[in-house]
Amino acid sequence: VAGEVHWTDDVLRFRDTDANGHVNNTVFSVLFESGRVDLIRGRLTPHLGPDTFFVIARLAVDFRAELHYPGAVRTASWIEALGRTSVRFGQEILCEGAVAARAESTCVLLDRATRRPTPIEGAARTAAEALLRPSAG
Amino acid sequence: VAGEVHWTDDVLRFRDTDANGHVNNTVFSVLFESGRVDLIRGRLTPHLGPDTFFVIARLAVDFRAELHYPGAVRTASWIEALGRTSVRFGQEILCEGAVAARAESTCVLLDRATRRPTPIEGAARTAAEALLRPSAG
Amino acid sequence: VAGEVHWTDDVLRFRDTDANGHVNNTVFSVLFESGRVDLIRGRLTPHLGPDTFFVIARLAVDFRAELHYPGAVRTASWIEALGRTSVRFGQEILCEGAVAARAESTCVLLDRATRRPTPIEGAARTAAEALLRPSAG
Amino acid sequence: VAGEVHWTDDVLRFRDTDANGHVNNTVFSVLFESGRVDLIRGRLTPHLGPDTFFVIARLAVDFRAELHYPGAVRTASWIEALGRTSVRFGQEILCEGAVAARAESTCVLLDRATRRPTPIEGAARTAAEALLRPSAG
Repeated sequence: VAGEVHWTDDVLRFRDTDANGHVNNTVFSVLFESGRVDLIRGRLTPHLGPDTFFVIARLAVDFRAELHYPGAVRTASWIEALGRTSVRFGQEILCEGAVAARAESTCVLLDRATRRPTPIEGAARTAAEALLRPSAG
Repeated sequence: VAGEVHWTDDVLRFRDTDANGHVNNTVFSVLFESGRVDLIRGRLTPHLGPDTFFVIARLAVDFRAELHYPGAVRTASWIEALGRTSVRFGQEILCEGAVAARAESTCVLLDRATRRPTPIEGAARTAAEALLRPSAG
Repeated sequence: VAGEVHWTDDVLRFRDTDANGHVNNTVFSVLFESGRVDLIRGRLTPHLGPDTFFVIARLAVDFRAELHYPGAVRTASWIEALGRTSVRFGQEILCEGAVAARAESTCVLLDRATRRPTPIEGAARTAAEALLRPSAG
Repeated sequence: VAGEVHWTDDVLRFRDTDANGHVNNTVFSVLFESGRVDLIRGRLTPHLGPDTFFVIARLAVDFRAELHYPGAVRTASWIEALGRTSVRFGQEILCEGAVAARAESTCVLLDRATRRPTPIEGAARTAAEALLRPSAG
């Protein structure tokens, strides 16, 4: 069964534009980050000790459509794969019902003291599994 | 009689934070800009020719309180003074009912061809007057 | 024979930091973009008509090491593959001799009027070939 | 006698542009911030305890000229006034020898524990005085 999708709302800003007149491509990374942080803080951090934190190891973005200011977007975030110490997130930015971009990102849970990967276990793992939607590919 | 206030909603992003752990002070300028652009596009541009545009000449920000991610803010924008070719905007960023910062900014209407100041006249002036709230000071 | 590498210098800013105390991951996308734009404007645009422009279709970043403010970085940019209407760039951000991140990005040349892909031909293709370093993988 | 000026170099980025085709006005605040932080970290922090830090209370920017990508800028920073617990900085952004913007900003030294203003004393005050250039106005 497919897990839940976590939604995050954002408002585009004039500062998001660039000299090409549209929302700059790096802003998509900013929106995807806000979606991931929102999911992690809302769903996983409550079950993780203060001695751990996630770092991003890889990000891949497919750009599908331009975004323009002014406008509002929604970012859908879910978990595509759950490793022992890492999570692969799937995400989409939607604007007026259309997908503007898709992203895959791999984040690793680190121990704050050793700064080395540490297992995602117990209640945090259960919480992550509730957001697990294996990719079709 | 005091004119109308123009409200703009924004959502704070993780990217808005800095190494001090709070929302970076330059993000306040970004939010004030979105408020001004929103007011200008919504209220003045419809009455101005495509041959004119506003540029900012001066910005002064008073920082009153820190902002923290996650959170949502509202920006109030109005007109404090209306010159022949320029507008002085007053603005406030509010978060959870408290004023996080106040700003005054002076924007000048330029002729796109000559890039020189050009008068704010006719329906644009009437629209600006509806947002005029002279400052008490 | 391996083609040339195009180098771009950048200076890190306090604004590049985030609440984790290091340079935010989305800033890597900003630096990679400046490297690509610098290569495109310096090497390809002079041979392309004003009726064409590049858009990014895909970006994949591998994060290798943290960056910290203050500091300076250099971005190496080259071409990994040259399609009929698209270019795949390879890039690395270096700080103090170490690779902080690697990126692959695919950019497509569009016709400004039709906004459809258009061939990279003639002198522009020759200029691109001078930067071609096929990836080992 | 006029004190010393502290110089900071920066490189403009494509991301600094906005839909008006020039460097966005909020980027000036980013560059001024990097100049202030550079001065504070380089000249004042070595003489201040780890239990204190500066916060910005007010920023006023006068925009004199547009900046365009690509380009490099230098930011001059000095101290215009030295209060008991606060510093008023004067700054200029220069591009190709011309002043693009001037800024005045007031920063207050806070005690990290109480988050209340604390005096700038001893070696820190002496270091600040070496950068003191009272404004003519």
